[in-house]
This record gives sequence, C-alpha cells and structure tokens, in this order.
Amino acid sequence: MARFRDFGVTPGLLPAGNRNAITDVDGVSVGHRTIRQGDINTGVTAIIPQPGNLFREKLTAAVEIVNGFGKSTGLVQVAELGSLETPILLTNTFAVGTCANALVRRAIAETPQIGRCTSTVNAVVCECNDGALSDIQAMAVREADAVAALDAACVEVEEGSVGAGTGMTCFGFKGGIGTASRQIGIADGIRHLGVLVLANFGRAGDLVLPDGRRPDPRAAAGRSVSGDTEKGSVIVVLATDVPVDQRQLRRICRRAGAGLARLGAFWGNGSGDIVLGFTTANRIAHESKHDLMVMERLNDARIDDLFRAAAESCEEAVLNALCAAGPVEGCGGLSRPLLSDWLREA
Amino acid sequence: MARFRDFGVTPGLLPAGNRNAITDVDGVSVGHRTIRQGDINTGVTAIIPQPGNLFREKLTAAVEIVNGFGKSTGLVQVAELGSLETPILLTNTFAVGTCANALVRRAIAETPQIGRCTSTVNAVVCECNDGALSDIQAMAVREADAVAALDAACVEVEEGSVGAGTGMTCFGFKGGIGTASRQIGIADGIRHLGVLVLANFGRAGDLVLPDGRRPDPRAAAGRSVSGDTEKGSVIVVLATDVPVDQRQLRRICRRAGAGLARLGAFWGNGSGDIVLGFTTANRIAHESKHDLMVMERLNDARIDDLFRAAAESCEEAVLNALCAAGPVEGCGGLSRPLLSDWLREA
Amino acid sequence: MARFRDFGVTPGLLPAGNRNAITDVDGVSVGHRTIRQGDINTGVTAIIPQPGNLFREKLTAAVEIVNGFGKSTGLVQVAELGSLETPILLTNTFAVGTCANALVRRAIAETPQIGRCTSTVNAVVCECNDGALSDIQAMAVREADAVAALDAACVEVEEGSVGAGTGMTCFGFKGGIGTASRQIGIADGIRHLGVLVLANFGRAGDLVLPDGRRPDPRAAAGRSVSGDTEKGSVIVVLATDVPVDQRQLRRICRRAGAGLARLGAFWGNGSGDIVLGFTTANRIAHESKHDLMVMERLNDARIDDLFRAAAESCEEAVLNALCAAGPVEGCGGLSRPLLSDWLREA
Amino acid sequence: MARFRDFGVTPGLLPAGNRNAITDVDGVSVGHRTIRQGDINTGVTAIIPQPGNLFREKLTAAVEIVNGFGKSTGLVQVAELGSLETPILLTNTFAVGTCANALVRRAIAETPQIGRCTSTVNAVVCECNDGALSDIQAMAVREADAVAALDAACVEVEEGSVGAGTGMTCFGFKGGIGTASRQIGIADGIRHLGVLVLANFGRAGDLVLPDGRRPDPRAAAGRSVSGDTEKGSVIVVLATDVPVDQRQLRRICRRAGAGLARLGAFWGNGSGDIVLGFTTANRIAHESKHDLMVMERLNDARIDDLFRAAAESCEEAVLNALCAAGPVEGCGGLSRPLLSDWLREA
Repeated sequence: MARFRDFGVTPGLLPAGNRNAITDVDGVSVGHRTIRQGDINTGVTAIIPQPGNLFREKLTAAVEIVNGFGKSTGLVQVAELGSLETPILLTNTFAVGTCANALVRRAIAETPQIGRCTSTVNAVVCECNDGALSDIQAMAVREADAVAALDAACVEVEEGSVGAGTGMTCFGFKGGIGTASRQIGIADGIRHLGVLVLANFGRAGDLVLPDGRRPDPRAAAGRSVSGDTEKGSVIVVLATDVPVDQRQLRRICRRAGAGLARLGAFWGNGSGDIVLGFTTANRIAHESKHDLMVMERLNDARIDDLFRAAAESCEEAVLNALCAAGPVEGCGGLSRPLLSDWLREA
Repeated sequence: MARFRDFGVTPGLLPAGNRNAITDVDGVSVGHRTIRQGDINTGVTAIIPQPGNLFREKLTAAVEIVNGFGKSTGLVQVAELGSLETPILLTNTFAVGTCANALVRRAIAETPQIGRCTSTVNAVVCECNDGALSDIQAMAVREADAVAALDAACVEVEEGSVGAGTGMTCFGFKGGIGTASRQIGIADGIRHLGVLVLANFGRAGDLVLPDGRRPDPRAAAGRSVSGDTEKGSVIVVLATDVPVDQRQLRRICRRAGAGLARLGAFWGNGSGDIVLGFTTANRIAHESKHDLMVMERLNDARIDDLFRAAAESCEEAVLNALCAAGPVEGCGGLSRPLLSDWLREA
Repeated sequence: MARFRDFGVTPGLLPAGNRNAITDVDGVSVGHRTIRQGDINTGVTAIIPQPGNLFREKLTAAVEIVNGFGKSTGLVQVAELGSLETPILLTNTFAVGTCANALVRRAIAETPQIGRCTSTVNAVVCECNDGALSDIQAMAVREADAVAALDAACVEVEEGSVGAGTGMTCFGFKGGIGTASRQIGIADGIRHLGVLVLANFGRAGDLVLPDGRRPDPRAAAGRSVSGDTEKGSVIVVLATDVPVDQRQLRRICRRAGAGLARLGAFWGNGSGDIVLGFTTANRIAHESKHDLMVMERLNDARIDDLFRAAAESCEEAVLNALCAAGPVEGCGGLSRPLLSDWLREA
Repeated sequence: MARFRDFGVTPGLLPAGNRNAITDVDGVSVGHRTIRQGDINTGVTAIIPQPGNLFREKLTAAVEIVNGFGKSTGLVQVAELGSLETPILLTNTFAVGTCANALVRRAIAETPQIGRCTSTVNAVVCECNDGALSDIQAMAVREADAVAALDAACVEVEEGSVGAGTGMTCFGFKGGIGTASRQIGIADGIRHLGVLVLANFGRAGDLVLPDGRRPDPRAAAGRSVSGDTEKGSVIVVLATDVPVDQRQLRRICRRAGAGLARLGAFWGNGSGDIVLGFTTANRIAHESKHDLMVMERLNDARIDDLFRAAAESCEEAVLNALCAAGPVEGCGGLSRPLLSDWLREA
C-alpha cells in the first residue's frame, strides 16, 4: 500500500514520527471494521486515545468546527468541559446513532455506575457521507460493527478504503482513511503530534500537491466524476503527547484547517469539516477527592511548532488517504479514479 | 392539571397567548410517548415545528449553549447553517442514538432522495438524564416510541410527568414538561413567542418564585432529596412566528437563560442547559432555482420585546412543568415532592 | 455611604469576604478619577489586578460577552491568549481611545522593550455610555485622568457616583460603581471571588430585589425617567485567587450574567453587558526559557461554588452601586432618583 | 508599480474584476496617509465602505478572528449586531486609540445627535505592528492623519508601502497594502467580492507561490532577515455587493484564512489575523419606523462561489502587496528584500 512520500515529494518541514501515523503518540491505537456487501461500502473506524478506562481517567480534548455541515455527536460537551471520556468512532452519516449506542453500552459494561450512582457518558461519533459509493439508506452498520472496530484497534494503522473510509471520495479521487505525524522537540525531549483523517472532501480539479501539480480526476478517468460542488466532509482526529490545555488544543486543531486549505480546499458549504483533538498528558480523574490538581502546560511561545505540525500532518494524512485508497465500486458500477494511478503515470 | 397561574401569581409583564403554550405559534404541535414499566420512567416528546416536509421546506433555527454538559445531537449543523430540517425529539440521555435513527428513517420515507441524489439529513435530538427515577441503563426507548411521539403531536400540550419529562427532577421537586407563551405586537398585528421546556435542573433549595418565596423540597418532604449539587439539565425549545434571522434568533434564545436564572439557577457545571429556537417565518426551500431569496426581518430596535418574551416564557414554562408534574416512583420507591402540594399548603 | 446589606436583606447564600469587595482577592486594588465640571459628569476607574509589572508577569484572564453592544478594546486578545497584561480601565464610551493610549504609554515606561525588542502590549479598556447625565461629546477624559485613576488605586473601594460611575444610570435609578465578594472553601483554605461593576443598565420598572420587591423610580420621582427601553450597559470585572484555567474562568464569568438576570435584567439589545475575569493564581512569565510550566487547576467538580459566587457577587455589587450612588445633575438639571431614598422610605 | 499577475502567474480560477481591487465593489473607496520621517515609517489606510452617512445607513458586517493576537477595536459590536457604522481605519498597533478618537469626532460632526439624543457610535480600527521598521513607541499618528486618509479615499487603490502598510513585513519580504477581487455570476448578473489586506505576517521561508515556487528572502538578501517565528499580523477587509446576512458573511470571511494558508501561513501564535467583511446590499436604517424590513439574501446553495472568491482574492491581495512594496528603511538602516526583485531574478 503506497504512501505519499513514496512518490518522492515530502510535505512540510518538520520530521515525521517513526510510523508517520497518529499512533506515534504513545498509547493511541486504531481499528477498522470494513463492510462491503452488494451496494454497501461502508464501515467504522475506532480511535482509542489511550488504554484503560477513559471514563474514569478522561483526556483533555477540544473541538474546532471548520465548517459545521455535519452530524457528529458528542461535540457540544467536549467543547464545554474540554474532556473526552470514550473512544472516538468514525462512520457514515446514518450510522452515528447506532455507533453512539454501542459506545454507551460499552462504557456501562466497563463502569456499571454510569447513569446510576454517577453521571452519564458522552459518546463521541463523527461521520462523513458515503452515499455516492454506498447504499447509505440501508443503515447497514450494526452495534456489533462498532465493537469489532474497537476490538481491532492496534498501533499499525491501515489506510485507504478501509473502515469508515471504505466509501469515501476526495477531490474526485477515491478517498478514505489516512494518517501522518510530526516530531516536536520540547524540553530536551521528542514529543509527537499525529493526525488521522477520514477524507471525503474537495471538488474534483481543486487538488494541489505540495510541489504545485494539480491532479485532475476528470482527466485521469474516462469515468464520470462529479466536479461541480465541494460536498462530502472531512473528519480530522488530532493527538499529541505535549501537555496543553483546552484553549491551546483548540488553537492547534484550528491549524488542521490550514493543512486542508494548502491542498486546495476552501471548506465548502456542504462539507462538514471537523477537527477533534486530544492530549494524552494530564489525565483527569472522573472522581477526585482533591479540589486542586497540578498540571503541566506548554509555554504559548512554543506553540508555533504544534501549529505547524497540525497543518503539515493534516495535509500529509489526506495525501496518504488518497495514495492508499484502493478501488471501490458502488451502485451501478460507479467508482473513483485513484491518485496512486495518477502519480504513477505522472 | 394545575398551571402556575392558577396559584395566583403571574410571572412577567407581557400578555400570554391563548393557550399559554408553544402551540400559540401557529403550526407548532407537540406529542408525547410515555414509558412507565417497572423501574423505567422515561419517554419521548416530539415538537413538530410545522406541518409538511421539513426537509424540503426548512426553518430558520439557532442554538444557544447555556452550559454544554449535554449529549444532544444535530446542534452543530443548526449552528452553522441556521436551519432545521427535522422535528425535534426530546428524550433521556441514552435514547439519543435511537431517536436520531428514527428521525433519519422517517425523513428517508418522506423524501426518498435523501442520501442518494441529494444530501443527507440532520436529525435533532436533545436529552436530559432521568437516571435518578428511571433505569436509564435499560436503554428502553425504541424507534417505535419516537414514532409514537411524533404521531401523537397536536396543539394541546400535556405538561408534567409525560413523554421525555416522565422521570425528570427540578429544584428537588418532580419536574418534566412545561410550556408558556407571550404575545408581541409587531407591525400592527399580534405575533407569538412560545417555549417548551424539559425541566430537569436546579439544586433543591435554590428555587425562587416570582414573588420571592423559596419553596424547599427538603422541608416539604419527609423523603430524602438530593440537594448538594446542581445536576440534571434543561432543554428549552423556543418558537416564534416573528421573522428573524439566525443572528437575531440566537440572541433571543440566549435570553431563555435569563428566565432560568430568575428561578434561582446559575447554570450548574453538571447541567446541560441548551436552547434551540426556530421561526416559522421565511421557510427555506431545500432546492431552489433562485440565487437570491427575499426575506422579512425584524428591526433590531424592536427585539427587546422578544428578549423579554423569551425570558418570561421560559421562566413560566418551568413553573408550569413543576406545577403539572404528578408523582413518579423510581427504583427502590424513590420519588420527588410536588411543587403543587407545596403551593396548596403555602 | 450605604451598602445594600445595611437595609436588612442579604443576597445569596455564600459568606461575603471581609471587605465584601473585589479587593478581598489579595493584591487587587481599585482607583477612581472623578470629573465633574459643568455638564460633564464622567471619570475613569482603574482595577489593578496585581502589583508589579503585569506585562512581564501576566495573569490568566477570560471574557464573556453577555451582549456585545459595546465599544471596549483589548478583549479579542484576552479571548485568544487567555491573558491580561495591563490594568483594566473603565470609562465612558468616547474615552476608550484616550485611556488605551494612556495604558500603552504607561506600559512602555515600565517595559521599554515593548514594540522594540519584544511584542506590543494589549491595553484593556471597557466602557459604558454616560451621555444622559454627561456631555459625552466633549470627550473630556485626558490621559492624565487615566493616570490619576491608576495612581489612586488602593484596597478601599469607593462605590457609587465615582470614577467611571459618575454619570451612570441603572434601572432608572442613579447607578455607578459597586463591588462585592464571596468566600469559597477550597483545599482546606478560604479563597475569594470578587466582582466590581460599572452599572449603567436595566429598564426603569424592571428591578427586582432579592426579597421580591420591585422598586420603581417612576413612582419614586416626580422627575421624568426614561423607561421604555433597556439601554446603557454593564461592565463586570471578576477576580479570584482560585487557580482556574481560561476555559473554567470563562464559564465562571458567564454566571455573572445570572446575577444580572436575577435583578430583572434580560440583557437588552442596546446594552453592552461584558464580563472580564482574571485569576491571580498561576502568573505567566512574558519570556520564559521553559517549554513547559507547572500550574494548579481547580477540579471541575468543585466549580459550582465559583459559579454561585459569581452570580451572587455580581447581583450584590449592582445593588451596592445603586445604594451608594449619590445625586448627579446633568444637562438641563436632569437627575436620577436614588435607590437608597426608596429603601429608606420603603 | 507591479502586480503579481504581471509576473505571469494567475492565482485561482475565478475571473478578477476590472480593477482587480476591493473598489470593484461599487461605492467602496480607499485612501492612505503615509508618514515617513526619520525612524518613523507608518501611516493610516481608510476603507470607506459606501458614500454618505454610515451611521444613519449602516451596512451588514461580520468578523472572523482567525487568530486573535491583535489589538483592534470595535469588533465586539460588529460581531453582536452584524453592522458597521463607521469607515474602517487600518494603522499601527499603538495608533488604534487615536484613530478611534478621530472616527468618533468625525461621526459626531456628521450626526450631532450621537451620544445625546441617540446612541453612541462604534469606531472600527484594525492594526498591525510595524515596530520592526518604524519607531512605534513614538505614537506618531495624529487624528489629523486619520482624517487625511479618509479625505484621500478614491477608487484607485495604491498598493505596497503606503498608508498603514508603510512599515510592514510579510514572509520576510517588504509587505504592506494589497488588493484583489473576483467576479461572481449571481441571478443573471455580475457581482463582485473584493479584498484589501494589510499584510504583515508569515515566517521568512514559508511563502509558497501558486505555482509551487518558494521565494526565500534569506537567500535573496545579504541582509539579516528574522526568520525564526511567525509574528506580525494580517488584517483582511472583505467587501461584496452580493446580499448576504451576517451568518453567511462570517462564513465567507472565514475562507480568507484559506487564502492565507495557501501562501504557506499557519496563522502563527503571535499573528493577529483578522477578517472584517461587509456587504453593500441591504443597508440598515439607524432609526426606522418599520418593525419589519424586507431583505434579499443569497441562497446558501450558491455560497461556494463566494467562499472561493474570498480565498482567491485574499491570496492574490497578499501577493499584490508583496509585489507592489517599495523599499523602506527603519532604525539602524534595517530593510526588507522585495519580492518583486526576487520574481524579476527568478
């Protein structure tokens, strides 16, 4: 499976992590459940931010709504409380409710006090519309599929037409799941910022590569490519092990939008472009007896490195999604050209 | 079933509408599905903003997050696009996913192009936690319950321990569904602003009546009342037939928070206090061939009347919920005192 | 000079600090410069959050815009960076530019590197319109007046018709400067939250006292009182020594709006209702060589006490402004009734 | 004076307006006052959105804070009320107060009722820090300079090292004022969106041209170029004659940030990146006797053209600022390389 760097162009200035993946942030794991049967090409992707009971030991989290044409759930509470207490599931637009139910049931199983002698739980599920390549009306995703994605989570991230990315389209090419990371030197040590994208955005003809080339799927394909409007969406999940507070994290998440813009996107009206970020530092106990907690926090004067890392990782994660995506055939034989084909021919 | 005015105190200065209910806004209807079986005391309440196909003829809508400790779904898109394209469902925290699924299926049935040759649909579901009086872990609400609430919608609004309000608690008293409205003179005619609340907020001992009295359920009841923290939540649905744009509507929604504060609430940390507003003026066609549309809009210099109406209607709707609420018994015989009892004895 | 408690009613449940003033937060000082000459009744009020060089040792700060009909300056940067690096000046609407210039010059004098070998400085000035009782077109405030207010700062806070409060009107009564505080038990010690208001808001006839009485200046005065619309504004400055981050602080600031609502306000269209908060804990060095800093932060589960303290302090600070305000005569002999007169007669 | 297109590269896909300037939006005019004396290289740029009394006939306006490290004034009220009632002045950071005073005095002269029998006026002034090339501590801008900029306003927009742009730096090159526009076909007619930038942002070495080339001023110059952090700021003023409401306009303004990102910026921590937009359609009377007004509004389904126009115009306006900027020498002979030199040599 190809990655964008294999084609000889390196996006950005900062060094990538060892895996060049969100799982370069220690403790993060990713799993997929891919559903391909008949006209259905969909699935679920799970990002487990850290091992253990997330409800009991929450993570600091933030949300940036680049463009809110989207049906994700759980974001309001993340914005208010600055915390994440479940894994993050990505799926198709009409599977959000079912995936949320799965997360609730799993949280109750792990923490039976939920909704009884303690508060309820905030399930976080984000989505893109794969209706062009999949029969989204079938509402084919089951709770068991969400569980399967969670159970499959590991540090090796499969990219392309897998999990929630199975039926995605990006700049008129086949889209899907992609990931990338950057190393940041902080306090005499190496820290990481990693990104995973569910890439389903961008108008055909708008894609710009880091070297200025403009791959156009309408030329590449003899097949019909819808190019008139920027629809679809992109979900960006951003992880870091740098200790930041929610204000800082939201600002970092915002810079993922710069990465999308460098690729030629302008965050179109019909595109739900959402960035959800978390840091693995400074876990927050669900029930602490202490009135005050001690936290580490990044010096704002050093945050530019994380801004740059967010923009670069997001840009490269989308390119990786495009390069890794294998062919998928939807209703009536509709399919998308592959960027990897274009790059090999270019 | 008692309403607060029956006890001789009239909140606010503006005249109420004929029904003193959200359904004074022409075309709005409300339905309930109540589920009481064993330890389960929950349900679904449906607000249908207008008859007809809401996806094809959307309404201008806005959201104000007073305090975002809540798990509602669909709000991100309402905030971005300023439009509402499904009925609004209220339910318990763990029934959001199932109710969203029901709304999606219903929208597809009404508009089979959804997710195929046109965009997907944004289901709006809001929630409060009824875990104290209901076995919320049972996840007892089914899609059929959501459908039943929608099918029951009419202009007569039942209040108190019904629908989503079945298991709610408010200032330590039994809470639930309440509604109220105000008349506003605009352009030589009478217009309305109406509010429906799902009232599940407020610490026992904090309630202040419009005349300054402070009903304390801890005195009223021999039974144990949890009084230490402000938990729960309140959902406020606000409707008007005054033509306003989203900026104006969001500002009006914000003033519902003033109504809550007048009752003694301070929008506690653990309370998901959310206001969702819509206007029935200026419907927006899903697919219009016109680049420009003509709209009426309120003169900002007249908006104070709507601000006042929002604060007063919200305050009275909560008081109506408290007065109408009948007794409900949860796990282990737990119940809440009734404000109507306190008022009759006072 | 009277305070509201002198009239036998105590707002809220939490105990006040020793001074019942913003200066109960250790290190905070307040100074006034009052200008009364001919038709001019205006001035400047300075809040110095802490002694020493604020640019070199910044404070964590947050802003909540309850209603943004206001001309304050410096708030955008406070919202983004979460920090305060000058004293806060309050003044009339058309003196903001001059007061900002004074803060810039003072900061340069203290830190000559500003704008040369380090960044510029963000001056924070908030305002209300005293045009009804003062000739605001005269633009009478000079930079020397701002300096005089800063130089006058001490822990004893004069209230009423002083400083920026000289020409203010509140609920149709004479308004002005007020302050109050609350004690909060945190981690086995006593901490404080204090508020100072510049009260110039509220429609005549809307004021509600904590015991339910409704003082109406239109009855109290033979003189004409403008009662038709809620104009004016209110600036709330909130200080605490509890260590909170910006997210928490903004949420606390928001609850000052609940205090205003309890008094009968609904945050009118023409009212610039702005809350600016800071904590004296966790000072932030302008230039630190450390990539990471260690901070204390409040447990969110304990934040309700600060929410309640913010609402109560704000409510009482406004009542103190109303009680302390002495008579001021504007153009053509216009004046406002005094709430202290009403309370003495009641 | 060169423009970027003169060098043979055309940014974006949409056609430019006749002047390729913000003044392609009918009625918009721009004036400069340049101050160059000794170590002072600064000035004022005025954008007059429409002729006539803006206070009496306001414009619909919106603000997008891309990164809020900035000291602009007047933005809070624009965000709340969605209206603009003065011309927009751009200047250096420490001249904001003085320019605001000039706008207030001018508004009073035009409308003597301001602050007496009607409300006050909200002066809008935005800024960038020119401290590297100008003695900003001198606070050299006088009110007369602001008046001179306003009086100089016309439809021919001078670009480069003029007005507020005199002392600016952009990606390590000499920056300043730039402008561009795009044509949009709406309702069988041609409408325009135009942008004017005060470009003072970007780290040396990060600039990417639309064809992928990366001009590095550190190579071009034998002189020292500060390249380590992204400081400075950029103010984007966006005008259109398409009828949009504030929600739409803010979304359009946000896309100017995509234009900045395409140039290689990531909206650095120390950069105040602010977009202020207005539409010349649907003027709003200060005092209208009508409760309801009739407005035209763009169909959201057509907004992508304006998004694209905003991104493209902003990108090209920055490139025009860079190409037009002539040499300026600051304290100690410090100067910046010119992009026009680089392009001629390339």
